[in-house]
Amino acid sequence: MAESDDIKVFNVSDVKDFVFAALNAVHVREDVAKLVTEGLLSASIRGADSHGIRLLPHYMAAVESGRINPDPQYKFERTASATGVFDADNTFGHAVGIEAIRKSMVMAREAGAGLVAVCNSSHCGTSAFFALEAAKNDFIGLAFTHANALLNTPNSTRPFFGLNPIAMAVPCEDEEPFCYDSAPSVITWNKLLQLCQEGLDAPPYSGADKTGTPTNDPNVITQLLPIGGYKGFGLAMMVDIICGLLTGMSVGRDIPDMYNTPLSQKRHLGQFYVAIKIDTFQPLKIFKERVKKLLDDVRNEPKRNVDDEIVVPGDPEKRAARRRLKDGIPINKDNINVFKAIAGKYNIKSIE
Amino acid sequence: MAESDDIKVFNVSDVKDFVFAALNAVHVREDVAKLVTEGLLSASIRGADSHGIRLLPHYMAAVESGRINPDPQYKFERTASATGVFDADNTFGHAVGIEAIRKSMVMAREAGAGLVAVCNSSHCGTSAFFALEAAKNDFIGLAFTHANALLNTPNSTRPFFGLNPIAMAVPCEDEEPFCYDSAPSVITWNKLLQLCQEGLDAPPYSGADKTGTPTNDPNVITQLLPIGGYKGFGLAMMVDIICGLLTGMSVGRDIPDMYNTPLSQKRHLGQFYVAIKIDTFQPLKIFKERVKKLLDDVRNEPKRNVDDEIVVPGDPEKRAARRRLKDGIPINKDNINVFKAIAGKYNIKSIE
Repeated sequence: MAESDDIKVFNVSDVKDFVFAALNAVHVREDVAKLVTEGLLSASIRGADSHGIRLLPHYMAAVESGRINPDPQYKFERTASATGVFDADNTFGHAVGIEAIRKSMVMAREAGAGLVAVCNSSHCGTSAFFALEAAKNDFIGLAFTHANALLNTPNSTRPFFGLNPIAMAVPCEDEEPFCYDSAPSVITWNKLLQLCQEGLDAPPYSGADKTGTPTNDPNVITQLLPIGGYKGFGLAMMVDIICGLLTGMSVGRDIPDMYNTPLSQKRHLGQFYVAIKIDTFQPLKIFKERVKKLLDDVRNEPKRNVDDEIVVPGDPEKRAARRRLKDGIPINKDNINVFKAIAGKYNIKSIE
Repeated sequence: MAESDDIKVFNVSDVKDFVFAALNAVHVREDVAKLVTEGLLSASIRGADSHGIRLLPHYMAAVESGRINPDPQYKFERTASATGVFDADNTFGHAVGIEAIRKSMVMAREAGAGLVAVCNSSHCGTSAFFALEAAKNDFIGLAFTHANALLNTPNSTRPFFGLNPIAMAVPCEDEEPFCYDSAPSVITWNKLLQLCQEGLDAPPYSGADKTGTPTNDPNVITQLLPIGGYKGFGLAMMVDIICGLLTGMSVGRDIPDMYNTPLSQKRHLGQFYVAIKIDTFQPLKIFKERVKKLLDDVRNEPKRNVDDEIVVPGDPEKRAARRRLKDGIPINKDNINVFKAIAGKYNIKSIE
């Protein structure tokens, strides 16, 4: 992140209006644009800036170049009472993910669980967005997406699988849902970029150079190392089996790179969504109360460093959301300039 | 592992007969004993010795002391077309897991997927055993169990969650199923015990002492560190939410320790099983062929160290199984002596 002089804070609803107007300007259909806006805002509000509004210019270019279809014809087929396949017609993964997890919830209401395989999709932002949609409706939500190769294969010179995240959200009494959303790499790609910018070393055994050799120099890191070696590698592989093979899409190195592929080329990504109806297993209220107690019990464990906290997954995002919903979303100068240029080009109201 | 002088190799079918006879001797019902025998043999054949036949004496004592019910009355309730709850009546987790994943498969045949929450269970051995049962029947199988606290909570002095494994098995053309079965700790508990025996250091940041301080001395390690810090910790938490909260069982530090709890005390563990019918998503044959290609593609990636292999999760277990099915199961002197004592006490045929 740049110096604070280079960062301004913008009101959430102003940013939201700008993002929606920008998507509208490149003719993204209203229902799609609305969900993409919500997805990008959700990431930026929760502090996941790498997957938030900074991606807007990339997405707009992808629409204008033909990669992302702004006016999709969704096809959903319910293949059994708890399963379905959803053809995204190459539109935004953000919109498709919400449509798909809603189908999962419809099936879960009837069948106890709903599993939807999405084909012909594109980048979907944070998987938390979809898992949380289920949890806010009192389901357990699971969201999986694959991605292009960036995770080093143990003992290989190069990456094969992507930084394929696993997300799970669970409703909680008197608190926003518990949400885990994590890639199986030691650090995130965004963290790597940040280390480059700040001239700091990467943590030991977090990345490797183009020969697969681990290095602390973020400037020569071309691939990230998996958590726990083969353990994290295996997690990425499981996600690719679900998101690539079970959806009929590509896997591993055959997945087109998000950036180093012409923006005219569709990515045909796969995603997988699951909703589980809690009260087919346990009374909902008791379950949610026990989730709350579990979260608090972990936070109240005895601390090794008393000046530091113990948190549970999702706590940093909840804290960011509280702050940003109140104070606004910080945007750095580079992105502000890009947004201003977009506003000028398409004659829409800028965020300033 | 002790010196090779101290290890003898025993024919698989002889070991199987001995284990079954021993369970029979403490009055484990035939259907239960058969599945427990298969579970223990499966682990020992696949090289997961920590979860294999060496646990037989512990289980026999647990039956005789009242922890494990040798003659359970199972209760299964199908709560929706894709979901059910299974009361294990405190019998062996090995037997219950197979019964439960079979229920999952019955539901998956009709509903596309089947999810079963198991309550009142006990230690189940390797989760791979249940996931593989589904994969051998051409389903994707997922198996989850929680366990007593052994995983350090980041910045806490002590463990809260167990080494809660995630297992997934997927059928594969012309090869045994792909199977991932892994706990979210840097090393396994068994590896720690082995390092103690051999007088070797533990890998950096794999374990911590009783104050939560990381140490390489295996003799003072009382808890293991999660892969990727909060990432692996979060995986263990997700599994406990599914296996504890969704089953109505205990979670975290309330789960009775396997060894340091009187053997008369039931553990009331929870497990969770999922079967997914592949051809509700993709043609089965194509899917299995693509799994095979994926496995081979990963194995054939360019190597960094050409003298070492690149493997996929499950490869070491497949290799051990090929060898042990042919040559037999290695058992060390200590275990041989224990087994001989069991044979003498119960007047059953020893493995020698």
